[in-house]
Amino acid sequence: MTTTDSGVRVSVLGLGAMGSALAGALLKAGYPTTCWNRSPGKADGLVARGAEAAGTAGDAVRAGQVVIACLLDHASVHEVLDPLAGELAGRTLVNVTTTSPEQSRELADWAARAGITYLDGGIMAVPHMIGGPGASVLYSGSADAFHQYRPLLDLWGTSTYLGEDAGLAPLYDLALLAAMYVMFAGFLHGAAMVAPAGVTASAFAALAAPWLTAMTGGFEGFGAVVDGGDYTVEGQQSLHFSSLDDILAASSGQGVSTEVVDMVQRLIQRQIDAGHGDEGFARIIESIRHPA
Amino acid sequence: MTTTDSGVRVSVLGLGAMGSALAGALLKAGYPTTCWNRSPGKADGLVARGAEAAGTAGDAVRAGQVVIACLLDHASVHEVLDPLAGELAGRTLVNVTTTSPEQSRELADWAARAGITYLDGGIMAVPHMIGGPGASVLYSGSADAFHQYRPLLDLWGTSTYLGEDAGLAPLYDLALLAAMYVMFAGFLHGAAMVAPAGVTASAFAALAAPWLTAMTGGFEGFGAVVDGGDYTVEGQQSLHFSSLDDILAASSGQGVSTEVVDMVQRLIQRQIDAGHGDEGFARIIESIRHPA
Repeated sequence: MTTTDSGVRVSVLGLGAMGSALAGALLKAGYPTTCWNRSPGKADGLVARGAEAAGTAGDAVRAGQVVIACLLDHASVHEVLDPLAGELAGRTLVNVTTTSPEQSRELADWAARAGITYLDGGIMAVPHMIGGPGASVLYSGSADAFHQYRPLLDLWGTSTYLGEDAGLAPLYDLALLAAMYVMFAGFLHGAAMVAPAGVTASAFAALAAPWLTAMTGGFEGFGAVVDGGDYTVEGQQSLHFSSLDDILAASSGQGVSTEVVDMVQRLIQRQIDAGHGDEGFARIIESIRHPA
Repeated sequence: MTTTDSGVRVSVLGLGAMGSALAGALLKAGYPTTCWNRSPGKADGLVARGAEAAGTAGDAVRAGQVVIACLLDHASVHEVLDPLAGELAGRTLVNVTTTSPEQSRELADWAARAGITYLDGGIMAVPHMIGGPGASVLYSGSADAFHQYRPLLDLWGTSTYLGEDAGLAPLYDLALLAAMYVMFAGFLHGAAMVAPAGVTASAFAALAAPWLTAMTGGFEGFGAVVDGGDYTVEGQQSLHFSSLDDILAASSGQGVSTEVVDMVQRLIQRQIDAGHGDEGFARIIESIRHPA
């Protein structure tokens, strides 16, 4: 572990499945790790792997140069840390508790007033993925803290720093989750369409996964068009061409709900109605930006 | 080209961008190729590359052992081929014209009555992708034709045979396109969410493409659960846990429309209302299968 800063003392507050996974990765890499959880007994497994168990949150904070908060919600963070603001001063708080962008900004302001270095983390993984190749963690807030402790943060997954605005990590987190849930609904719509023809969802998944993976290759082009603000550029499929009537008719023909695809059709239609039918498909973002 | 059946005489009816791309791939591989298009002049570029231009659709059909139809729509196929049914008898018709599942089944029945071997193709690519690594073509109908002419079909892209039901290729095609459009809407929703924080759509695309690619890894598990019919299995995130309230609140907070995510939330809510909140997320397919 010669390339890490494994001499850094770390404390982990909150030992749910995610907090325990984060602490486990630190212990595996040899970091001196102190653990605390509101309800007792949660630290036992980690202690067996070399962690120190703190009797109080204050003991945990005092033991760590870096304090990881992985608590229930925003209110829990304040409840646990408000009485310890003085103890946290001069230390780095890495908050991976799920919070809204506004809540993360509020915590960053609170930390700044107390002299605490604040880094917000959005974990794009489930606990068992922590430390594996598929885990990704987004960070925002103190750039200095991100760079200073990057070897530690990289233990959990691929680390991406988004900017000084502490709200960016939860905002990206929620935006990526939105895209994921919507993609899942699209996949399940497709599976529902083919099912009446005797096609299993597993058989559809085997084609849909590589197909949608290939189609994510289109995001870069959409991004360039959206950022350029000119949806008339060549190479973009027009909104008229993108009419989903065939897909809707086939969905109805198979006896399944059309509501998943209707959502996209409405975004298209509003742009056609506004006179933009000859422009590119990326223009549907204007329907999203400007609620009907 | 020793591993191909490049002695097979092929005719291509319809020389739009896609038909021309299909014919171009055949010529490149050395297949004797005859081309026809309703409006003249479209064959010139292909003739320069070695194609024969037929003056009538009948001449083209008589020149080919395999006849590829890449026409405007289902009506065009009948208009061009009905008078030539006798000439087509004993030949193989590969119809890649965009049709509905019902239209493909109707054409397969028509072909069977006329003694024509029928294979339906759904091209999952735009013309410039034909012959490249990203192109995929789905086939259904005659298994014999698929296997006999597979070397020819493989020139266009990855070939997948779905079954004897001729409607399967267009059904899968439309189901995969549905999933794609819905995924695009989800991506653009995420891009719209982060935009007010100063994040470009290109920056969001750079994270969203690998994220959604990783998340397609979940399709296999969803497929197994759906096919098993038991949504209470371990390892599936419950519908209660999947509440999209945080995402909806953040979307509203950023001033963007919630309609893209509302679609998923409604699918979830109907299952929760029906008492299935503790079951896995894959259960939303039941909301799609049974329209509200």
